[in-house]
Amino acid sequence: MSNPSILILPGDGIGPEVMAEVRKVISWFGAKRDIQFDVSEDLVGGSAYDAHGTPLHDDTMAKAQEVDAVLLGAVGGPKYDALDFSVKPERGLLRLRKEMDLYSNLRPAQCFDALADFSSLKKDVVAGLDIMIVRELTSGIYFGEPRGIIEEGNERVGINTQRYTESEIERVARSAFELAMRRGKKLCSMEKANVMESGILWREVVTEVSKDYPEVELSHMYADAGAMQLCRWPKQFDVIVTDNLFGDLLSDAAAMLTGSLGMLPSASLGAPMANGRPKALYEPVHGSAPDIAGQGKANPIACILSFAMALRYSFDMGTEADRLEAAVEKVLADGVRTADLLGEEGVTPVSTSEMGDAVVEAL
Amino acid sequence: MSNPSILILPGDGIGPEVMAEVRKVISWFGAKRDIQFDVSEDLVGGSAYDAHGTPLHDDTMAKAQEVDAVLLGAVGGPKYDALDFSVKPERGLLRLRKEMDLYSNLRPAQCFDALADFSSLKKDVVAGLDIMIVRELTSGIYFGEPRGIIEEGNERVGINTQRYTESEIERVARSAFELAMRRGKKLCSMEKANVMESGILWREVVTEVSKDYPEVELSHMYADAGAMQLCRWPKQFDVIVTDNLFGDLLSDAAAMLTGSLGMLPSASLGAPMANGRPKALYEPVHGSAPDIAGQGKANPIACILSFAMALRYSFDMGTEADRLEAAVEKVLADGVRTADLLGEEGVTPVSTSEMGDAVVEAL
Ligand SMILES: CC(C)[C@H](C(=O)O)[C@@H](O)C(=O)O
Ligand SMILES: CC(C)[C@H](C(=O)O)[C@@H](O)C(=O)O
Repeated sequence: MSNPSILILPGDGIGPEVMAEVRKVISWFGAKRDIQFDVSEDLVGGSAYDAHGTPLHDDTMAKAQEVDAVLLGAVGGPKYDALDFSVKPERGLLRLRKEMDLYSNLRPAQCFDALADFSSLKKDVVAGLDIMIVRELTSGIYFGEPRGIIEEGNERVGINTQRYTESEIERVARSAFELAMRRGKKLCSMEKANVMESGILWREVVTEVSKDYPEVELSHMYADAGAMQLCRWPKQFDVIVTDNLFGDLLSDAAAMLTGSLGMLPSASLGAPMANGRPKALYEPVHGSAPDIAGQGKANPIACILSFAMALRYSFDMGTEADRLEAAVEKVLADGVRTADLLGEEGVTPVSTSEMGDAVVEAL
Repeated sequence: MSNPSILILPGDGIGPEVMAEVRKVISWFGAKRDIQFDVSEDLVGGSAYDAHGTPLHDDTMAKAQEVDAVLLGAVGGPKYDALDFSVKPERGLLRLRKEMDLYSNLRPAQCFDALADFSSLKKDVVAGLDIMIVRELTSGIYFGEPRGIIEEGNERVGINTQRYTESEIERVARSAFELAMRRGKKLCSMEKANVMESGILWREVVTEVSKDYPEVELSHMYADAGAMQLCRWPKQFDVIVTDNLFGDLLSDAAAMLTGSLGMLPSASLGAPMANGRPKALYEPVHGSAPDIAGQGKANPIACILSFAMALRYSFDMGTEADRLEAAVEKVLADGVRTADLLGEEGVTPVSTSEMGDAVVEAL
């Protein structure tokens, strides 16, 4: 049997720097645990635009469809702000999500013990926090038609369409229930059924799917109330399932609340491929942080933990994922900090590369 | 000249209780400051549905169009969950907003000194916080067509449409710039221009309007980053302008972050009427809280401060608004607390009515 394959797409800004540290981790697994991956690398986002005039070359898209897992760094930067919508760095990422049909985006919002003080929230509100937001990723207002800017009378009108079919809602709901079964068996679904018909359908379908998971306690919340409750007492949640746009805002807010933004990974999963593995893309929750790019200041942990998610969800190597996560926790407990995690007295920041080395060392 | 007119719509849940306290305040202004209002009252939301089978009777709608200001308590409750979408309590409120064309929704997120400990955020993050979110209120995905649940192939599809015309964006942007001029002269506009064409148009129009306000420092932020930054360091903002749906989530999150949810008012303003006053509706940010309705536990301050906003924005009585706001601050500084504000040792909660009396006393 051939080695599992990984396509690395470092992208823009700090993407390449943090991805270099993931490479060290992958090498460690090869050298010390004899777990080999076939790793290839390509461009996405602004760097792909610079090279090919498109944020995702068709060849790269084809490669992404063939590998067992894609690891992505980050896309975007002010350099590309003036580009036409159709070739902006983000379109590369959105095309990957859409064409790989990665409908289930898992975004853990977890507070690392050693970092609870970094949250803007009070320590008792976030310490020990561990929730999972499941965001629908391939439909909704991100992709619905009609869309665009049209002329009407003597002015322009900006249009986007929220569209959800029953089956789109069903499959992401199912993945959220499955996750809830393996966690605290509580699922909260968020929409605006009081205002949007697409939210009404969302609530109906989620309720219908819940019949297959009688052990999971299902609740529904309007998304605005959900935003409030995440800010008030996030520990009330276990798994949250929501649509593409609400998921974008809510998961970012939740990630920030943990105080561990530079630490948080994500997995975007699709249907099983012929080999039984799901189509999958892993990426940190943080962005490309162009302001600190190239300075060795970035925190590689979110990207490293994204690889841990790959071990767990793509390669069925839960024990190895646990090992990697434990190594990260150890490094943090030892007080190793990149610049984003400073604030405590008497701690000197390490560079991106030193942090990667520390994780490998802890492994 | 006839007295300014106010239509009171207490609505559902705790609405009638908190509105009773506003009535005391209105009476005080009549008796002690000789400021008389012609006050009428009517039904909205679930209570209107119970009486008339519709969440807003046409007669009530007509009255709302004629008065100088509408004061609304809150709408909704589990009792009405099973109602058809078209007659849900929320439709009454949405009809008022739409037909009165109240396009500019002002939502202050302010942290009261005496209450900074109530926030889930650390005290230094929220103490002294005073930001204003201007939410577009009559367009966007709340009202766009086509909408509904349709059959397609052999399944149902939920559809909603985000639609913004240039002039809709322009007028709300203008109201936000005007506000910024009277405050800290900083305006941050939030959308998802990286994903939505309606966001691109939003950003363009706001940028265009900014030319008329060279003194205001304008910035743009993607709404997900905005949600993050509100959670991280809300004091970086002065005025925020955003669309109907983003405004719904972001203003609720901001309100919760202050720890003063039961304290926060809102104003929804439209175009000037023949008498020069804007069409206006004032309501607390909190909901109808059916769980505590009828128990005298509700905090009437958000509703009282909504009346203060009416004094300021509808009746040009800034000094009287200041007086009322100062009275509320005094009551809080004196340690008077409704049940929602408990937590400190040695404080006994007062009832809704006692809180209203205390404010009148402080006046
Ligand atoms: C970069 C952008 C297109 C993307 C999104 O809006 O989905 C990002 O914010 C995210 O959450 O992954
Ligand atoms: C009650 C509901 C229709 C309303 C909204 O979604 O606008 C509420 O959440 C608000 O923010 O005023």
